[in-house]
Amino acid sequence: MAKSAVEEHEHTQKAFGFAATDSSGFLSPFHFFRRENGAEDVTIQIKYCGVCHSDLHCVKNEWGFTRYPIVPGHEIVGEVTKVGNNVEKFKVGECVGVGVMVGSCGMCELCGQDLENYCSDMVFTYNARDKDGSRTYGGYSDMIVVNQRFVVNIPDNLPPDAAAPLLCAGITVYSPMKYYGMAMSGKHLGVSGLGGLGHIAIKFGKAFGLKVTVISTSPQKEDEAVNKLGADCFLVSTDAAKMKAAMGTMDFIIDTISVVHNLAPLLDLLRANGKLITVGLPEKPLELSVFPLVLGRKMVGGSYIGGMKEAQEMLDFCGKHNITADIELIKMDYINTAFERLAKSDVRYRFVIDVANSISACKM
Amino acid sequence: MAKSAVEEHEHTQKAFGFAATDSSGFLSPFHFFRRENGAEDVTIQIKYCGVCHSDLHCVKNEWGFTRYPIVPGHEIVGEVTKVGNNVEKFKVGECVGVGVMVGSCGMCELCGQDLENYCSDMVFTYNARDKDGSRTYGGYSDMIVVNQRFVVNIPDNLPPDAAAPLLCAGITVYSPMKYYGMAMSGKHLGVSGLGGLGHIAIKFGKAFGLKVTVISTSPQKEDEAVNKLGADCFLVSTDAAKMKAAMGTMDFIIDTISVVHNLAPLLDLLRANGKLITVGLPEKPLELSVFPLVLGRKMVGGSYIGGMKEAQEMLDFCGKHNITADIELIKMDYINTAFERLAKSDVRYRFVIDVANSISACKM
Repeated sequence: MAKSAVEEHEHTQKAFGFAATDSSGFLSPFHFFRRENGAEDVTIQIKYCGVCHSDLHCVKNEWGFTRYPIVPGHEIVGEVTKVGNNVEKFKVGECVGVGVMVGSCGMCELCGQDLENYCSDMVFTYNARDKDGSRTYGGYSDMIVVNQRFVVNIPDNLPPDAAAPLLCAGITVYSPMKYYGMAMSGKHLGVSGLGGLGHIAIKFGKAFGLKVTVISTSPQKEDEAVNKLGADCFLVSTDAAKMKAAMGTMDFIIDTISVVHNLAPLLDLLRANGKLITVGLPEKPLELSVFPLVLGRKMVGGSYIGGMKEAQEMLDFCGKHNITADIELIKMDYINTAFERLAKSDVRYRFVIDVANSISACKM
Repeated sequence: MAKSAVEEHEHTQKAFGFAATDSSGFLSPFHFFRRENGAEDVTIQIKYCGVCHSDLHCVKNEWGFTRYPIVPGHEIVGEVTKVGNNVEKFKVGECVGVGVMVGSCGMCELCGQDLENYCSDMVFTYNARDKDGSRTYGGYSDMIVVNQRFVVNIPDNLPPDAAAPLLCAGITVYSPMKYYGMAMSGKHLGVSGLGGLGHIAIKFGKAFGLKVTVISTSPQKEDEAVNKLGADCFLVSTDAAKMKAAMGTMDFIIDTISVVHNLAPLLDLLRANGKLITVGLPEKPLELSVFPLVLGRKMVGGSYIGGMKEAQEMLDFCGKHNITADIELIKMDYINTAFERLAKSDVRYRFVIDVANSISACKM
């Protein structure tokens, strides 16, 4: 077993999860320790954890900053089992969530604006150093201890397994829709890429009263996009005639594509004053012609998850509109197969691990 | 003499200007005709005309859509000599201006929002087809007839020669400052490139109460930028140490560079939520890394001149704050030398032709 954090930091709570120990990315059972529940902390028994594409990037060290062992998972839903003395927002037994971050400086201008996600000292839920110097481990595990600022309530009416992906995929598309002014009934939203992020963007778009068009390379996704997910239109991005006919018709596009791609056809789809917002992270620079930006006053913007206040707002919005992810629930020991399928985009649209019901059976 | 528009379109008012007849870009005297003053028209005796870098691009056909002969000039200031029956806004003898456009459809959503500059039927002041099918000729000429919608008042307190560049350079930087929310006292504006556009952007920035930093490749411009134009700081973009020290300090950057350049160092200068607005038109695509956009919620936007209502607002703002361009006044027959110097950026910061006092002497 890999060296655990407790030896460095004297954590005492036993935890059990699945970790990758090298860039093969293969996950195997992993015993480790978490800190005791502090005055500001909430201890959570993890019930479900979504499988984000970032998890796959990280276990394989595709972004180059992975430190092994790594326990992935940042779409966590579970039950509160303990709260610190200073915690009033959460009670034992409640259903709560934890997303991409578990800490930030708390003192900078951005933290003061509830934008912890852009704080330069933001602490990722896994593969990071927490404030006490210990390593953070994610939600592919049986329990977690999190500062209350980074815990949110899951609305009672939402199924907790299908709600888990809202903690990352949900807030990642909700936040830019609010920030860039897309929540305007009657406007036309393009959703580029129909995967974990894109399928939730459709649902938010329809809840905001937008006309939603999916832009995808996969014609076979049309039926489901329109008839199941509620999109109004479906554009195959390789169909030159239809792309041309749709030029200048969209007010906004959320671009969820995380590989290198051509922005020009997307910018062409926008009307004057249109906004192309990317939430994917292609590893190489893209080509940008400034002509459409200047002559059509268009913009290319970005957005990264969302702050904790907005995450709670997003979940409450989901509760009100019954928005959750379309998921495939898997057992913990299926995770390596799930990663293989995820790499081939063979999931509609998010794997969620049934942690509480399947992790104990994996204990060595 | 080249075939004039009147033979096609039966225009009857004699006009005289300077035209290029081929892609050498060399300008020579040119007799042509303009339409009679219609009910919605204003006839203007041209007093001054600014020399924009676009004029140079167009006479040399560098953008590929020039039709010769071309009479450039879209920073026009002059005196009203006639108004049509339906014109109430302007009176004979008033000092007025005409900028980059002289027509638009007037019926689309954008025209309805006073954004004629983004109307797909916008008519350029020169090198374009007017609504009656005739060619448009610009302000390097003795008079012009323009629909009243595209005429603006020049405030009495502004010197008309130094006000001329406001019609293009001024509105080009003013409009994005308003649209992208830069008119916020206390924020930090970067001005990338110190030329015709950049030097006016400094003046607007200071009038809006911003801290203004010029980013330039030319260290020798520092003294003038700070001590004459009022910039607060000056950053030499090749000084890696100072560029690094300035990282994350700016709220907005107006990028006036019109050649291919690297956006990454400019994006680095921005704080989270910062906006990089380009008003130049590099002929090839730029490289754009999406990481700063996503991880810092930054954006790259564009803007193109401004609508007529906003142009008048800008001029009134200039009147109130005594903002004009720093100019070098030239005679009409100096234009070919001026173009040579402009191509070498050898002007601080705008040539303006003293049309009324020098064009008659050039008549053949």
